[in-house]
Amino acid sequence: MNLRSIIWVVLIAGASLAAGAPGLRAADRRAADLLIEADHVVSMNPEMAVWEPGAVAIRGNTIVAVGDLETVRRQVRARRTERVGNRWILPGLVNLHAHIAMNPMRGVADDMELMAWLRRYIFPLEAKLVNARFVYEASLLGCAELISRGTTTVVDMYYFEDDVARAVREAGLRGWLGQTIIDFKAPDFATPAEALQYTEATMQRWRADPLVRVIPAPHSCYTCSPETLRLAGELAVRFDSPMTYHLAESANEVADVRKRYDASPVEHAARLGLLGKGRLAAHCVQLTPADLGLLQGSGTAVAHNPDSNLKLASGIAPIPEIRRRGIPVGLGTDGAASNNRLDLFAAMDLAAKIHKQRDSDPTVMPARDVVRMATIEGAAAIGAEKQIGSLEPGKQADLIVLDLSGPLYEPVHNIYSHLVYVAHGEAVIGTMVAGRWLMKDRRLLTLDPKRLARLASGHRGEIQRITGGQP
Amino acid sequence: MNLRSIIWVVLIAGASLAAGAPGLRAADRRAADLLIEADHVVSMNPEMAVWEPGAVAIRGNTIVAVGDLETVRRQVRARRTERVGNRWILPGLVNLHAHIAMNPMRGVADDMELMAWLRRYIFPLEAKLVNARFVYEASLLGCAELISRGTTTVVDMYYFEDDVARAVREAGLRGWLGQTIIDFKAPDFATPAEALQYTEATMQRWRADPLVRVIPAPHSCYTCSPETLRLAGELAVRFDSPMTYHLAESANEVADVRKRYDASPVEHAARLGLLGKGRLAAHCVQLTPADLGLLQGSGTAVAHNPDSNLKLASGIAPIPEIRRRGIPVGLGTDGAASNNRLDLFAAMDLAAKIHKQRDSDPTVMPARDVVRMATIEGAAAIGAEKQIGSLEPGKQADLIVLDLSGPLYEPVHNIYSHLVYVAHGEAVIGTMVAGRWLMKDRRLLTLDPKRLARLASGHRGEIQRITGGQP
Repeated sequence: MNLRSIIWVVLIAGASLAAGAPGLRAADRRAADLLIEADHVVSMNPEMAVWEPGAVAIRGNTIVAVGDLETVRRQVRARRTERVGNRWILPGLVNLHAHIAMNPMRGVADDMELMAWLRRYIFPLEAKLVNARFVYEASLLGCAELISRGTTTVVDMYYFEDDVARAVREAGLRGWLGQTIIDFKAPDFATPAEALQYTEATMQRWRADPLVRVIPAPHSCYTCSPETLRLAGELAVRFDSPMTYHLAESANEVADVRKRYDASPVEHAARLGLLGKGRLAAHCVQLTPADLGLLQGSGTAVAHNPDSNLKLASGIAPIPEIRRRGIPVGLGTDGAASNNRLDLFAAMDLAAKIHKQRDSDPTVMPARDVVRMATIEGAAAIGAEKQIGSLEPGKQADLIVLDLSGPLYEPVHNIYSHLVYVAHGEAVIGTMVAGRWLMKDRRLLTLDPKRLARLASGHRGEIQRITGGQP
Repeated sequence: MNLRSIIWVVLIAGASLAAGAPGLRAADRRAADLLIEADHVVSMNPEMAVWEPGAVAIRGNTIVAVGDLETVRRQVRARRTERVGNRWILPGLVNLHAHIAMNPMRGVADDMELMAWLRRYIFPLEAKLVNARFVYEASLLGCAELISRGTTTVVDMYYFEDDVARAVREAGLRGWLGQTIIDFKAPDFATPAEALQYTEATMQRWRADPLVRVIPAPHSCYTCSPETLRLAGELAVRFDSPMTYHLAESANEVADVRKRYDASPVEHAARLGLLGKGRLAAHCVQLTPADLGLLQGSGTAVAHNPDSNLKLASGIAPIPEIRRRGIPVGLGTDGAASNNRLDLFAAMDLAAKIHKQRDSDPTVMPARDVVRMATIEGAAAIGAEKQIGSLEPGKQADLIVLDLSGPLYEPVHNIYSHLVYVAHGEAVIGTMVAGRWLMKDRRLLTLDPKRLARLASGHRGEIQRITGGQP
């Protein structure tokens, strides 16, 4: 190679270096509607990359580029840039189990056993209180809390789920919304046959929605007959739909199911074909080794709800063992009546702590793993890990912005530790779903706080008229 | 009684009724500097009175009247009135165990066993990092968090406690500040003899301070010789001072003490005369029935730290049993390096939940009892129940203002349930100690946030230079 060639090669190499990556020329850059630049971007991608500073480029509802600031700047041509400065961008949190319309009921009855709580307080209250209008309004309140605390995807389970869906759609959240099917008279339907019919019609109605999906939610093995459970399962298969239900939540449930069916709840569910991919079992607190084996082989995912399990003294689900076995598992808040908040940061804190205690081992459930459960592993639990749960090109632009500045947080040595052990949901200042801001600088953009206040005040009156004032 | 007499009596009675209480005439009213009027006042007094609306009248550092709005208005003549509207006023929270200067260390090392955490990470880091200047600065950060989260009284334990005291004084908090006495080389003193000498001098120096008190804090039975413990106890007696120390925190401690002294930590402490009124034992996780009996008879109080006990997998202290036995007990956060936040609301939530789980009984530790532990029972645990812990005439004006409005909180059916299960410390918008606002509308008034940010940034650099960057 002569000197001329060498110079030529060097010039070309220099030009390539300046390009830094394919796409130096403006024409080659990916088009983006929005470029968000931040001092810290936590991706939760397979490499657990954190970029400081970093950027996320979004086109429509999709992430087109994400990475360190300079690289993304070179890769994209954005119509608009938002610089959030000393903030942390993370994927939106995935809440695998909630009853969002129960928000107005929190604090009505606490400090009692699950069955007594349900049968003496919650079911009778719901019988008088819950109608389509209430569910829609109360779900708006629940959505406001989810958005404020950084949840972008919620798996719900309640009555009048079409009205939950309306609220979730209006709020702009992503939802897998379970219509309850139960054997006794529910607030919406007197029989499981009617509930099944409504479920099917509602699934049909929401089928084409990009964010909201209605799915069957048979309540549990102790409140649904085998026939009801089987029919719900068939409905899910017919629609190629996920399904969710309560499973093995309390010792009472186990005793009840064992007495009636001579099987554990998990065994009973397995016999009825309720385990399998796309099936999300909430709680799974009371499991035998045989149950764990059945879950492991099946593809069934688990929603872990540490707050309500502790508050109702249901027990501590064996989550470290569930994770060791590769059973998909994420976090849920459960309803605000049994938690009493829809804040996954609180759930993360508790999940990190109680398993250390249960296993007498402070090294289990390290903070990083717990954040994975609330994001990418939660997404995988509902089969959505290709769409959400991490910040990666091609995924949906579901993200949250956190403010960890000031004396309550600084200095930050380890972001995962801070997310789990220091931050509450209050650190969330921005929430985006599918490229649309639902909250910015702590201001709700899709819901009107004044209207929410009026609704809450109305619900207070309705509940007090039923319960006769302070519980 | 003739008609005239009857009319006369009715007239007099009517006038008395209009007066409502002694002190109708302006001259008879109690003088107050400040009258705070709010839609909700939660007293935590013996009757657990809640006034809606209510008011608190303050003169100097003292509450001169508190009760329902109209009554207080009639009772006092205030120079100034502040109307906080739809807010909740409560007594300030009492944090019985903290190491406030550890705030900059949170997240440096997590998810490991207590002894490994202390010996491999915390003690070596402290040896290089901790000096008088660092302790003063870091304590300011800790105080900012305490004030922001509604703590008005803190029991601390650390090194260079004179510098902690300077920071607490500057912040305006009330503090029982424990100077650590320990047998190995500490960041401040090489020998327990030197530490004892310094403790005595520092106790002397702060003796006349109305808010800050320095007390002896022998570290524990496993890090102090019997001689050191005895000398610390004698020092407390000589000054008629409270004393605090770690006791029965982990199984390792129990094994260690049993091996060396053929006694449980509590038995060992009892033999050395360390139990008794004015003695505050932090943790008390690992207790035998005999230990419980020793504590019960002694007047010793317990600081319960649920967050750090769980995070370090030390165990769950038998608090319901401790309370049944009438042993004084309140809540602590422990240091931010092992919790990782100085938020008693988080501690309340956890305390309410884990004991339900431990005892398999969701009725234990109801929300109301937990709020008592964080206020009046915490005050009683340090023998200050006549000065603080509830809103009552004659007590110190230590109070907090909470905002529970908006969709994150409304509707509120039961305030104790909301305080424990829904609110985080973020709900606190105002904090007053001894009649002086330390925070108002979430704005710190005694500490400068910009200065705090500079300090935190400096500490980050110092810690990273020692640990070599991200842990």
